Amino acid sequence: MKQLLIVHGSPMRTTSFSRKIAERAVALLQSHHSGLNVVRRDLAADHVPHLNEAAIAAMRPAPGQSGVDTSVLSYSNMLVDELVAADALVVSAPMHNFGISSQLKAYIDNIVRVGRTFRYGENGRPVGLLGGKPALIVVARGGVYSSGPLANLDFQESYLRTILGFIGVSPEFVRVEGTAFGGPAVEAALAKAEAALEELGVAKGGWNSRASA
Amino acid sequence: MKQLLIVHGSPMRTTSFSRKIAERAVALLQSHHSGLNVVRRDLAADHVPHLNEAAIAAMRPAPGQSGVDTSVLSYSNMLVDELVAADALVVSAPMHNFGISSQLKAYIDNIVRVGRTFRYGENGRPVGLLGGKPALIVVARGGVYSSGPLANLDFQESYLRTILGFIGVSPEFVRVEGTAFGGPAVEAALAKAEAALEELGVAKGGWNSRASA
Repeated sequence: MKQLLIVHGSPMRTTSFSRKIAERAVALLQSHHSGLNVVRRDLAADHVPHLNEAAIAAMRPAPGQSGVDTSVLSYSNMLVDELVAADALVVSAPMHNFGISSQLKAYIDNIVRVGRTFRYGENGRPVGLLGGKPALIVVARGGVYSSGPLANLDFQESYLRTILGFIGVSPEFVRVEGTAFGGPAVEAALAKAEAALEELGVAKGGWNSRASA
Repeated sequence: MKQLLIVHGSPMRTTSFSRKIAERAVALLQSHHSGLNVVRRDLAADHVPHLNEAAIAAMRPAPGQSGVDTSVLSYSNMLVDELVAADALVVSAPMHNFGISSQLKAYIDNIVRVGRTFRYGENGRPVGLLGGKPALIVVARGGVYSSGPLANLDFQESYLRTILGFIGVSPEFVRVEGTAFGGPAVEAALAKAEAALEELGVAKGGWNSRASA
């Protein structure tokens, strides 16, 4: 692993639990991979644009359409290039109203690109183009959604698993959950996330054979 | 019904199927309710801001915290006031990458407000504050997600049902789906949506007793 992309999906710069654990993972990886190039895409700083009419038209020109203004895709192209160039990916994703943050959704809408991150194969069936790129996704949420009565309200982890799989990214998830209960619950949630990093092998330099190499 | 709020979640102004059917519903409702005041919130025009650190801090001040700058919530407050004032709601929601558009997610993150659209009741259990406000949600998607092999990839209708229910809105869904197959499939999808408006009673002036009254 030579290049690692970290995408911060939280608008909170200092108090975000997902960001904290994601940065912890990056520090662990850096201590094992000398000269690792870490690229940070911080959506708290970027004000990722929503897709507008011009961007959608440029992403999906009608068959035979010419004269499409693709200059509106320069930011999207940059995000895609950055993602394609990375050997592995770390994402911090807070839960906002049971889903991902709107900035992370806007990021996703900018990187899911036909011909770049997926294509239509036989019978129009979509095929991810990122070749199983390893990703470590840190999801944070105030409640406990991994099991119990709130499990069916999780549109965060389940969504990220689906959309990342769609473009050929292979995600592993680390959860920081139940932090809304405060004090000892926060400590316990962070300790559990730390243990998950250990279990996945991040503390030893990776979390799958490709990210470890 | 005196005041109807229509929220357009599609960035496409002229080619959006969800917008087309939602406007059709509004036209039908107007023909039955003389003097109906229709308020349009068009997210193709609004560039809804992502929640940033200041907005989140203002929405959820820490216990005992004072001096919070609530001026950052003026747009959010306006959206909430507009929603609270409406007798009923029509939403157009295209599917973008299996979920809702990022602008509609940003809208939701601006209207889900503790103390305004939900509160914490006994045992910290959240209670929606919008009292079962009737909503007609037009979801559009290129594929067919209401049944069949793609059903578990729907993070659009299932999410809207969950988050609107959370704040006390009672949604009914009209689907425009399978339009990616083009030509006759588009005609069939629009005809089916039109039939759904009929079936729900929209063509007769409402879709539940409160929206009809």
